[in-house]
Amino acid sequence: MSAQIPDLVASRVSDKAKRQLDIVAKFVEEECIPADPVFEAQIGEGASRWEHHPAIIEELKVKARALGLWNMFLPKGHYKESPGYTNLEYGLMAEWLGKSRTASEATNCAAPDTGNMEVLAKSAFLMTEPDVASSDARNIQLSMRKEGEEYVLNGSKWWSSGAGDPRCKVYIVMGKSDPNNKDPYKQQSVIIVPASTKGITIQRMLNVYGYDDAPHGHGHIVFNNVRVPASNLVLGEGRGFEIIQGRLGPGRIHHAMRSIGAAERALEWMLMRINDPKKTPFGKQLKQHGVILEWVAKSRIEIDAARLVVLNAAVRMDDLGPKASLKEIAQAKVLIPQMALTVIDRAVQAFGGAGVSQDTPLANMWAQIRTLRLADGPDEVHLQQMGRNENRRGAEVTQKIQAQKQKTEQLLKQHGVQLFQPGANIQHKL
Amino acid sequence: MSAQIPDLVASRVSDKAKRQLDIVAKFVEEECIPADPVFEAQIGEGASRWEHHPAIIEELKVKARALGLWNMFLPKGHYKESPGYTNLEYGLMAEWLGKSRTASEATNCAAPDTGNMEVLAKSAFLMTEPDVASSDARNIQLSMRKEGEEYVLNGSKWWSSGAGDPRCKVYIVMGKSDPNNKDPYKQQSVIIVPASTKGITIQRMLNVYGYDDAPHGHGHIVFNNVRVPASNLVLGEGRGFEIIQGRLGPGRIHHAMRSIGAAERALEWMLMRINDPKKTPFGKQLKQHGVILEWVAKSRIEIDAARLVVLNAAVRMDDLGPKASLKEIAQAKVLIPQMALTVIDRAVQAFGGAGVSQDTPLANMWAQIRTLRLADGPDEVHLQQMGRNENRRGAEVTQKIQAQKQKTEQLLKQHGVQLFQPGANIQHKL
Amino acid sequence: MSAQIPDLVASRVSDKAKRQLDIVAKFVEEECIPADPVFEAQIGEGASRWEHHPAIIEELKVKARALGLWNMFLPKGHYKESPGYTNLEYGLMAEWLGKSRTASEATNCAAPDTGNMEVLAKSAFLMTEPDVASSDARNIQLSMRKEGEEYVLNGSKWWSSGAGDPRCKVYIVMGKSDPNNKDPYKQQSVIIVPASTKGITIQRMLNVYGYDDAPHGHGHIVFNNVRVPASNLVLGEGRGFEIIQGRLGPGRIHHAMRSIGAAERALEWMLMRINDPKKTPFGKQLKQHGVILEWVAKSRIEIDAARLVVLNAAVRMDDLGPKASLKEIAQAKVLIPQMALTVIDRAVQAFGGAGVSQDTPLANMWAQIRTLRLADGPDEVHLQQMGRNENRRGAEVTQKIQAQKQKTEQLLKQHGVQLFQPGANIQHKL
Amino acid sequence: MSAQIPDLVASRVSDKAKRQLDIVAKFVEEECIPADPVFEAQIGEGASRWEHHPAIIEELKVKARALGLWNMFLPKGHYKESPGYTNLEYGLMAEWLGKSRTASEATNCAAPDTGNMEVLAKSAFLMTEPDVASSDARNIQLSMRKEGEEYVLNGSKWWSSGAGDPRCKVYIVMGKSDPNNKDPYKQQSVIIVPASTKGITIQRMLNVYGYDDAPHGHGHIVFNNVRVPASNLVLGEGRGFEIIQGRLGPGRIHHAMRSIGAAERALEWMLMRINDPKKTPFGKQLKQHGVILEWVAKSRIEIDAARLVVLNAAVRMDDLGPKASLKEIAQAKVLIPQMALTVIDRAVQAFGGAGVSQDTPLANMWAQIRTLRLADGPDEVHLQQMGRNENRRGAEVTQKIQAQKQKTEQLLKQHGVQLFQPGANIQHKL
Repeated sequence: MSAQIPDLVASRVSDKAKRQLDIVAKFVEEECIPADPVFEAQIGEGASRWEHHPAIIEELKVKARALGLWNMFLPKGHYKESPGYTNLEYGLMAEWLGKSRTASEATNCAAPDTGNMEVLAKSAFLMTEPDVASSDARNIQLSMRKEGEEYVLNGSKWWSSGAGDPRCKVYIVMGKSDPNNKDPYKQQSVIIVPASTKGITIQRMLNVYGYDDAPHGHGHIVFNNVRVPASNLVLGEGRGFEIIQGRLGPGRIHHAMRSIGAAERALEWMLMRINDPKKTPFGKQLKQHGVILEWVAKSRIEIDAARLVVLNAAVRMDDLGPKASLKEIAQAKVLIPQMALTVIDRAVQAFGGAGVSQDTPLANMWAQIRTLRLADGPDEVHLQQMGRNENRRGAEVTQKIQAQKQKTEQLLKQHGVQLFQPGANIQHKL
Repeated sequence: MSAQIPDLVASRVSDKAKRQLDIVAKFVEEECIPADPVFEAQIGEGASRWEHHPAIIEELKVKARALGLWNMFLPKGHYKESPGYTNLEYGLMAEWLGKSRTASEATNCAAPDTGNMEVLAKSAFLMTEPDVASSDARNIQLSMRKEGEEYVLNGSKWWSSGAGDPRCKVYIVMGKSDPNNKDPYKQQSVIIVPASTKGITIQRMLNVYGYDDAPHGHGHIVFNNVRVPASNLVLGEGRGFEIIQGRLGPGRIHHAMRSIGAAERALEWMLMRINDPKKTPFGKQLKQHGVILEWVAKSRIEIDAARLVVLNAAVRMDDLGPKASLKEIAQAKVLIPQMALTVIDRAVQAFGGAGVSQDTPLANMWAQIRTLRLADGPDEVHLQQMGRNENRRGAEVTQKIQAQKQKTEQLLKQHGVQLFQPGANIQHKL
Repeated sequence: MSAQIPDLVASRVSDKAKRQLDIVAKFVEEECIPADPVFEAQIGEGASRWEHHPAIIEELKVKARALGLWNMFLPKGHYKESPGYTNLEYGLMAEWLGKSRTASEATNCAAPDTGNMEVLAKSAFLMTEPDVASSDARNIQLSMRKEGEEYVLNGSKWWSSGAGDPRCKVYIVMGKSDPNNKDPYKQQSVIIVPASTKGITIQRMLNVYGYDDAPHGHGHIVFNNVRVPASNLVLGEGRGFEIIQGRLGPGRIHHAMRSIGAAERALEWMLMRINDPKKTPFGKQLKQHGVILEWVAKSRIEIDAARLVVLNAAVRMDDLGPKASLKEIAQAKVLIPQMALTVIDRAVQAFGGAGVSQDTPLANMWAQIRTLRLADGPDEVHLQQMGRNENRRGAEVTQKIQAQKQKTEQLLKQHGVQLFQPGANIQHKL
Repeated sequence: MSAQIPDLVASRVSDKAKRQLDIVAKFVEEECIPADPVFEAQIGEGASRWEHHPAIIEELKVKARALGLWNMFLPKGHYKESPGYTNLEYGLMAEWLGKSRTASEATNCAAPDTGNMEVLAKSAFLMTEPDVASSDARNIQLSMRKEGEEYVLNGSKWWSSGAGDPRCKVYIVMGKSDPNNKDPYKQQSVIIVPASTKGITIQRMLNVYGYDDAPHGHGHIVFNNVRVPASNLVLGEGRGFEIIQGRLGPGRIHHAMRSIGAAERALEWMLMRINDPKKTPFGKQLKQHGVILEWVAKSRIEIDAARLVVLNAAVRMDDLGPKASLKEIAQAKVLIPQMALTVIDRAVQAFGGAGVSQDTPLANMWAQIRTLRLADGPDEVHLQQMGRNENRRGAEVTQKIQAQKQKTEQLLKQHGVQLFQPGANIQHKL
């Protein structure tokens, strides 16, 4: 909550946002987290998991609206519904939302809509494809052939998050509209497709470890001669790349902050566990074991460092926009999930069997966050890109260091001294 | 298979075992692994997952028996049904069994029976309890009160693996029969309890990262005034500790070798992935990316090292018995699951979304092996114990090093030299 | 330089400080780094290393003063010589100073004086003792017995950094003045002792790996009935603890920022290496190897994250003072040296043999920073303390989570649903 | 000693070797380790460090010969001076030799001679070059031009270990004799060059983290028109590659086993430290701190696992020769130094300041072993090669897994079941 804002950013958070943050925190802790298991219970079992929406969500939404917690993610200045928060301010709120399975949806801040809201509500974004390395969007294969005033779509998509939800009515689909364009970044377009269009089949939903994430879910969807009016195109033909780039900036920051919230919650569960007076291996409570205390300390350090990294990216986006913040966003994208997985796994280990089971939120949180090391491209792809970017300084630093060495030579002469080299006078060689 | 036996142990593996190993390898690769998804399909959905047993298993069993693959784990010399393999030899076979979900059961070598066979087939071992740190068996609380010729059991157990299976007819239960005994290692007894005894309730089954592991499963079982004839006691009252200690040695080796098999299989899936010509991030196949090749190489090194650690423990057990091998067994217990998790997680990452989903065996294998860092006590408990054991040398090595220092002093005097200490002649101090 | 200030803090850095930062950066890169090998050459060999001071330093000092680079570390508001920078602002400068061996001294910002300036220039702080765990100041043993108007000091100190320098004229000594005081935090006092006082011997200088760090050095100093006027006491008897606490805050931040500078320099050397056209293992330049690019990317991420952690502590100190910033300072103290060692070691590895030798600054930087994991207490002591502090929340979070669970129970009842428990209806048990 | 031989290899160690091993162990612990500081003291200071040889070595040699400890490394069957030990047996002895700085030389088993003995005693092997990635021998540039019956050598070498010793009379030099040969593996030759040949200059000696390793040392040597009789060629022109390949196998095993000895010694020093009754942070001896006990336990596990890896390679070399053991040798080459560095660094940390200083053998051992991650090629080069080798199975395992999937399809049809796919029946899409 507002009392815990890192000092580094405190001065940039408005009083309004601070008040809102306190309300978010209280709402998440007192309303949403207790509602999470109810949500799961209401989803039910079997096929029905995909066919209805838990009533508890609607209750929470009513409460959220009453508290003024709605659409906090909507960027300042772009939408009339926007409550006017900066990326930094919403980032701080997103951390709290990330502690609960229901909180983001209850406040109308749920992914994928935080990325898609520019377009439409209750939508799923369909980009990833099963057969190619689609994290490089140039590899996308779903065909968008123009026929008259329509596009005809053929191909398949998976990891279409949210597609399982009965309320998901619209797909935002990235496809290849101009495969022969010489510029590989102009071959793709994005088009809006009603979910009920003929030729679309939800083939199945994908599991994440053993979780189906119903009713939201991750769809594997097939397009077979799906016809869509050309007027459904977003921005215009060949602008697909542009769209996803604009979309990813804030979304990645939101994901990262929610992951930090998850890590904080895992740490709190771990603290509960290690203070449990019934758990006394070697005759001492877990909190008296040095190894466990070190886990707690490292978790605290790692979470706090990660938060600063994300907030720095958020501030830069606020000041200079997403394009100027690609490096900072990529750092957050890579760093935070790995941190959160480490912290959560420590908590799992502290809990023993309960940690991997349905009795704590830990195993499920771990599985969710594990996908973030893959979503929108695996860590390794981002690291390669970042390595190349950093290496652009290569020639410049080489030149600088060479100049420093030359100046050293001059100074040595000038001062009449030589670098000491051991053994330089070895005489036994002759 | 036999051609891949590490050189270090090759001479200790009999020709008969080598032939058997080749048969096991072929059976697992050609029969069991293809049958794994069929097993899962036959389990079905919903409550029925716990109510029947997949027919494919019986088919595999017939094939296994015809190939002479039966009960390989039964210790040489103790059982007339034993095919007579050493721990080393069976260990090498267990690695192959670990690659498939069905192989161990198909060859009658399934956990928990590899640990329980000393007692009864189709049984579950009930030791862990939900409310205490039961990895230290002294903390066990399930009450076993003697009344006449019966014991009355009250309490609860969880992580009772195999208890979900409709064929599981017998529970081997560890309880506290003599809570006031001054020797905390004599308070426990083990008793055999028919699963159908009145007062027993399977409260629920526990998930592992969303997987229910049906029909085998991990039961949470409640005992409410359960009466069992005193004659069902194993070995005698107060001998519970002794029983679990004898039981854990070979079982831990089997678990470890199976985990190595799982890691090998994950590596093979990763190799398949990185040779997929359709996956070409940055315009190169994954196998041409240095980071990926390093994952492959490290996985190879780590698997091979881990195998030697387990086989060394197996050989020591063969030569000196489990009691003399506690250190080596503990090393395997801690080291192998961490190695396997690392290797499998690399494979998950190489696969991207498919890696966390139902489309590869990887996510499920990871979840299974994650529990091994907790089962029979978390890693940290074993490490503390091992650290203490190693530190028993503390006084002795201190004495030795002090003696070496004294001898150095003598030698320095004798040779008329002094240790060089920089700055020992600093004069500017006055 | 000023263009690279993290966005998160940019608004808190004054224009004056930004201008100064640019001057510092240029001075370090163009004057100090080239002078570093000259400094080493002028120290010479053998005993003379401790007997004179390299002339190049005085040249640099003249330049520094002319540029207005002097005493930047002196806290705003406490000293008339202070140029008036905040901890944040000086922290940013300290990063640049940390890239060069001579820069801190050339600008009169050298450790240990950044910590000791509150007292005296050209001094060494003598706290650590060879025979006890003196990172816990309660263990300090050097005896300070009061006799009339004098204190008589007996005992020994080591790791007295700066004591080797012929210009070091004063020791600031922490000793035990009141060993029987019931409050273990009131037993220590700090007293100022001229280095030339009778009874003081510099026994030797300590190496760090193979480096002697002459002429500064790390002294092992013996006190044998050393008499000092009682008026030399700092603050008053029994206030030793208080003094070192006040002293460590800013000093730790300075150390941490200098280490970040060292890591940045190591990264630049690595970039130079991987762009060397003569180094082509497997027929490709190092910069084309994915593993190397990943090192570059990870180094960039880790350095940037670490910097934010230190600057956050600096800002908190600026706003609330060191006492309120103990957590943030401790996080920086533990995190930064480990990060810097990792980055530098990658650079060493990229250089091969040159990396461990005198031909790059890397090996020496690594050794220097390795000591920071020990100085002022090993990492593990700080982690234990931080773990305990974090765990103070234990009872509170336990209560919160329990309340959340109770609310869940209420909600479940209210909505007439139950948590799904797999296998809860298993019937085969009877 | 012989009582500690891993069970896995015990049966392959002859009684003679076991007795010898006990003698080696006693000699190292009681004679060599105490002599190590005397050796250092006798080397002295300044230039004289390179000009004489410590007398203590000759004393140790006399003792060693009297105990029959001489040339143990000489391969069985190749030399009449060989005492007849297998690689496995000598490997076990080399572990003990690795605990002491003087033991290898005292028993005539010192590197580089363990690799060079095939050729000549008191020699240095000159392969590495300062300006190229010479770990790939094809990059070697030192020119060997034939003129009549002589070769004329021009170029420079560094990391010529042993070249500093006044007794080093012969250089074994790898150069490029046929730069235009189409086969890049036939361009190199090896020639024997007396150290006193005209045109040779020891330019300087290289430091390793501040240590000069005198008098042995690591030379940087320049060849300026150095003329050598063609008859000095080893094996014949163009056979340089062949020679270094044969040479590296046993040498790498020896290095690895010595590193394990160093790690064992570091662990013993750590045990001494944590049992020191004067070191009581937080009021407890170090041995009572869980974090420290975990370091001890992990060190024990890691050392034991590493030893098995090396011994497995040794056994394979014994059975099948070095060529058939390249994979196993490479695993040891990469794994062992990293393990030893980790163990030693833990010991350093346990010691605090003493750990990085001249007061323990730890810092020096760490620096020595750090070079093994670079010598004969950096880890990363070996990992790439190993990754590629492992990936040769790629096509085969792909085929196997595809066949398994096809068989699964058949079985599913045959059994009339389908894989369960969640959400496959979602109806809300229309």
